This record gives sequence, structure tokens and C-alpha cells, in this order.
Amino acid sequence: MRTSVGIIGAGPAGLLLAQLLQRHGIDSVVLEARGRAEIESTVRAGVLEPGTVELLAEAGADARLRRLGQEHRGIALAFDGGRHRIDLYALTGRAITVYAQHELLKDLIAARLEAGGGLLFDCPVTALEAFDGSGPARIRYRDAGGERALECDFIVGCDGFHGIARQALGEREPPWHRQYPFAWFGILAATPPSAPELIYACHERGFALVSTRSPTLQRLYFQCAPDDSVDAWPDDRIWDELQARVPAADGVGLERGEILHKNIVAMRSFVARSLQRGRLFLAGDAAHIVPPTGAKGLNLAAADVRLLALALVEHFRNGSEAALLDYSRRALRRIWRAEHFSWRLTGLLHAFPDAGPFEREMQRAELDYLVSSRAAATSLAENYVGMPRDWD
Amino acid sequence: MRTSVGIIGAGPAGLLLAQLLQRHGIDSVVLEARGRAEIESTVRAGVLEPGTVELLAEAGADARLRRLGQEHRGIALAFDGGRHRIDLYALTGRAITVYAQHELLKDLIAARLEAGGGLLFDCPVTALEAFDGSGPARIRYRDAGGERALECDFIVGCDGFHGIARQALGEREPPWHRQYPFAWFGILAATPPSAPELIYACHERGFALVSTRSPTLQRLYFQCAPDDSVDAWPDDRIWDELQARVPAADGVGLERGEILHKNIVAMRSFVARSLQRGRLFLAGDAAHIVPPTGAKGLNLAAADVRLLALALVEHFRNGSEAALLDYSRRALRRIWRAEHFSWRLTGLLHAFPDAGPFEREMQRAELDYLVSSRAAATSLAENYVGMPRDWD
Repeated sequence: MRTSVGIIGAGPAGLLLAQLLQRHGIDSVVLEARGRAEIESTVRAGVLEPGTVELLAEAGADARLRRLGQEHRGIALAFDGGRHRIDLYALTGRAITVYAQHELLKDLIAARLEAGGGLLFDCPVTALEAFDGSGPARIRYRDAGGERALECDFIVGCDGFHGIARQALGEREPPWHRQYPFAWFGILAATPPSAPELIYACHERGFALVSTRSPTLQRLYFQCAPDDSVDAWPDDRIWDELQARVPAADGVGLERGEILHKNIVAMRSFVARSLQRGRLFLAGDAAHIVPPTGAKGLNLAAADVRLLALALVEHFRNGSEAALLDYSRRALRRIWRAEHFSWRLTGLLHAFPDAGPFEREMQRAELDYLVSSRAAATSLAENYVGMPRDWD
Repeated sequence: MRTSVGIIGAGPAGLLLAQLLQRHGIDSVVLEARGRAEIESTVRAGVLEPGTVELLAEAGADARLRRLGQEHRGIALAFDGGRHRIDLYALTGRAITVYAQHELLKDLIAARLEAGGGLLFDCPVTALEAFDGSGPARIRYRDAGGERALECDFIVGCDGFHGIARQALGEREPPWHRQYPFAWFGILAATPPSAPELIYACHERGFALVSTRSPTLQRLYFQCAPDDSVDAWPDDRIWDELQARVPAADGVGLERGEILHKNIVAMRSFVARSLQRGRLFLAGDAAHIVPPTGAKGLNLAAADVRLLALALVEHFRNGSEAALLDYSRRALRRIWRAEHFSWRLTGLLHAFPDAGPFEREMQRAELDYLVSSRAAATSLAENYVGMPRDWD
């Protein structure tokens, strides 16, 4: 089999890239190790920057998102018993859209199949070959029939932190890596929303986030120990813990209800040294991991793919290598911006086991400043909605 | 001897407070352990916020400052071989004034003596008594003639971190205290200025600051080890080190010249738990220490004194205790703002011995952000020129 761009991984990065290339007449094949049903049901992120929504429109995959996604024009910071709204829209002219990542994947998969593009599930990749040479590169993979090979001009690894692409690129010990001394306990609950907008709560018991997926499905998180276990948390204990960390508004607490799903999310920061080697490129989680506090993972994947699609289109249009060679540098600037924001927001809102009294007062002083300075709130807001395209 | 307000320490806080009270017809006596000549010649800070300049005008001590102080409408951040201007004036409508602290002290002492106010040099305080009771409080001190006592309605400790007032207030182990793993090596050099505005340089060899005192006298600093020695640094080594850390502009390096003075400045953060007990109050360095990076020490002392003078004037006018009882809370909010800013700016610009590659990239990402986002630059600028009075 032969294609122009071989894409590893049918997550948001890989599928979005395939769609953007297709719109410019560039053929690609997406290889995915997992099955379609698993991908379409795994609960993940849910906050889309306006730049991500624009890109989904350019990819022709925004129809359902426009109908079902919820526009949020602000978020709340909760601390010291009170809630303070950060008016994203007033401060930046932009808003976020709440829409579950697995719904977005359904849309991208449907668009891909409808367009007749190559998309193979249950096909684990086993080796990447010849991407450093001058002939075609080769992706070796398995399907139900046995070993196969896909020849292509370029390989793009959108296969996550544990994928083969990052290893093939030569990253062994990640140089920029940070593990946090806590994790997030996430639940999916069948209740109405507890608040009209997301609540980021900083409490001495630890961070909590009240988020939503739909009018009947809510996503909530609370900081837990990295070695905590889902089994240690019966439903009542979860609701009590969340309620203890999130101050009631006008005496109204959280909406309790059936918990459909529980999981623990690790917290780490990671950035690859380079996003390119020869004709192999990285995008999305293969290139970077952010702690989920800033909701940047999915959006950063989309931003990578935008730049990479531009570079590939330019190459296939006029043979130029310049944009391809510049992709890593350009993408890394935004990646470091998002890494820094995610790291700072994580530091601002979590209880650190080794923090002393001075560090805790620094957190409190910064929270007080964020809700009393327009400049500080604008800085938070512009990062939260995503730096504009022309910032790159 | 009897007075309304007994003030310990003839630094900026004590002298400014005495002048502000005098303007409202409230008598005070300032007791200072050191001699006048020593105070008037000790090289210290040199950056005045506009709010501090306003307050000096209200105290009637700004005539020479207006003539000799240099208005600076911006500062430079230097990193990665380049210099980037932060336009304080465009971002906040305000500017800083460069004027040496010992010149300011000369002005305040002259104003005090001219007004016939009480100001006693070479009078170390030995005990504070009865400030918790209902009768007059008492300051015991020594002068050339022996032991003396000053009776007063209120005692204000402006006698610094090592002074008696902080101890008398009951702060033993400072709860909010942080020592930094580096110090500043400061020099005073007889040269013309090397740049029209201050340069804050972040370099892998360590931080450096190019500052000025007058058209013929420059103040420069560079990060050194906390146990470093002045004797280890002959003049040529100092200039070489400074030049290595501060990128040349258009090929022009630093102005070298005779070094008149060398000293090493410790770096720490400290905030007192409370600024009041009974009729004893703290202001200035007795209440808080900031690392010098943000130039906040002197300005914070002035801000304390502004609030305390307001509260004392209200009390002597109508007998109200409310503002006095609220002084500590109000002053601490601005103090924590300045502590947070100084801590963050210190973290942003210095080389930390224990920083890993991730932390260094975070510094670089933040510097890049500061010079590419108006909101971030405005946040830096508004803190640097000082939060406005109505922020309190």
C-alpha cells in the first residue's frame, strides 16, 4: 500500500490532520491500534479553544459540535469560601466550547469515512523504517490478515506518549519531564450541571474541578494521591469530598447523582526535544504532555496539526521544504507557552504536599491578585482561551 | 519626655511617618540608634514608585527629588542575547523615579529638623513597655547622658528586621520566611550610565541588574553565592562577569570605571504575622523583607506609613480606633502582593542551583511570554510601578 502521508493514531491529532490534508487533495492513511468502539467511548477532555473550533470547521467536522457544544464565556475561581468569575469573553473577546473529546472523535471518524479516506482500526504499528533516507518511508503494522507495510512520503506520529513514533525519533530519556506529586480523580455523573460555568476550586484539602459534558452528564475531578485507588472511593465519599472543596453558591451545593465512571488521571509535563527527524513528524501527545489543569492537551494537538498541515500542503503544492523544516520550531513555541501556563495553573490551584506556609501564602496572594487586576485576569484568560493564531 | 507617637528608627518609614503626622499637627519623636552621618551615607535602594513620590510630596520632602530624580518610563529585560523594553508608561500611564535612598533620607532629615520635630540620633532603644495596657506606653533608650524613657500614646517600630519592635510584638520564629540560595553582589561605580533605563538580565551565569544613581554614579548588581566574599572580586573580574551576563546593545558594552563601593546583599522573603499588638505598630522592614529584585522594600515601607498615618490622624481627630485596628489587615494585603511579585520576579530572572532543564525552560517560556503579550507585560508593569492606592 502507498500513500502520501502515513498517520499513526486515530486520536484528535491524527484524524484532524487527515481531514485537513484531504481538504487540500492530499491523501493519507490513518492506522489505529485500538478498535473504533473503544475510541468512540473513552472519556477524555472536553474544553475546546475557539481556535480548535475554527480548525474543526476548516476540516468540515463541526456540524454536530455547533449544535451540541456549549459555549462558556467565563469560568469561576473558587477559594477562601467564595467564587470569582473570570469573564473570558469580556477580557479576550473569545469563549470556549464544552464538547466531549469522544464526541469529537465520532464526528471526525464519520467525516473521514464519509470522504472515503483511509482509516484502519485494530492495526498496531510495529516499526517505522527509512524515514531518514531519500526513498519512501515505511510503516510496518499488523492487521487481522498478518504483517503489512504502508509506504509513504511522510510519517506523522500522533500515537501518544507511549507510541512508537516518539521512540523512533530518538527520544529516549525525555529531557523535559516533570511528574507531579498528585493525580486527579475523575468521575462522570448522571446529574444536571451544578453551575452554569466550570469551577476551578483551590482548597486546603486539594484542588477540585466542576466541569460538564452535557445537560445530563457532568465531569468532576478532585486532586488525589498519585497512588490512590478507584476502589477506595465509594460514591458518597466522592460527593462529600467534592462538596468539602467547592464552596456552595447562595447556599446551593453540588448536584449529586449516579456516578457512571471513575478513573484516576496522572499528572505530568513533558516536551519532546524535536518534533521532526527526516520525514518523521510528531504531533499531539507524542510531542508533549500537559497536566490537565489548563485543558490544553487536545487544543495543543489541534494547534500542532494546523501548523503541520500548512507545511505539508505547501510542500505538496510547490515542493518547498522550508515550512516542514520550520514546523518543529514553530510548534514548540506554542507548546512551551501551554506547558508554562498548565504548570503555573497547576501550581496555583493544587495543594502541594511539600509546600510550606510561605508557598501557601504565595498561592493565596496570586489568587487574590488574579481576581483584583484586569491585567492579571486577562493574562489568565488569553491563555485559557488559547493564544491567537498570529501569536505563533 | 512625652509625645503622641514614639517612632523607632530614622529610616524612610520612620522619618516619613513623622513628617506626615507633623503635617496633621500630631507630634512625634524619632529615636535612631545610629548617627546621622552613617545614615546619610549608607548606599541602599534607588527606585521610587509614583505612589511613593506622591507621598513624599504630601510630606513636603520632594523638592530636591523633583530636581535630581530621574524619571524612567521603561525598563529592559535582557535574555537570550537580546534586550526587550517593557514600556511602563504606555502600559500603566505611570513611571518610576530613580533617586538614591540615602539622598531621600537627607531630604527627610532636613525637613524634620527644619520643622523642629523630635529626632534623636545615637539613641539605641533598650525596651518597649506598657503598650498592651491602658496607660501611656514607654520606650526606654540610651543617650550620651545615660538611660532615658519616652512616654507616648503609640509606639511605631520602623527599626528593621533585627529591631526590638518585631521581637516585642511577639514574633519569634517568623512563620513566613524564605531564604534564597543566592545573594546579590552590588557595586557603586564612577562612570556614566551604560543604558538609558534599568536592565534586568537573565543569563545562565546568573542574574544581573544595570541600575543608576546619577549621571556620574552607577549601581550594578550580579547574582553571587550567598557565602561569596567581596575580597574574591577584584574590579576586573567584576566588570568581566557583568559584561558576560548583560548582552551588548548595538555592539556597545558596559561603561567600565572606578568601583567606589562593593557589598553583598542577602536575599530573603519575610512577612510578620501581624503588624499590631495593643498600641505597638510595625512598618517597613520590621514588618516585611522582600528580595530586592522588584525594588519594593522602600516603596512598601512608604505604603505602610501612608495607611498608618491615615489611621493615626483619624484617631487623633475623632478618637476612633477602627482604622488603627484595621491597619494590619489593610497593609498586609499590599505587602503580600509585593512579596508575591518580588518572589516571582526573583524566580523568573535568577539561575537556581537546583533547577532542572524543565524549570529552566519554564523561565525561558515566561520571558518569551512577557515580551509577546500585552496583558502579561501590563501585569509586570503595574506591579513594578506599584498597584494604585485604590487597589488597597
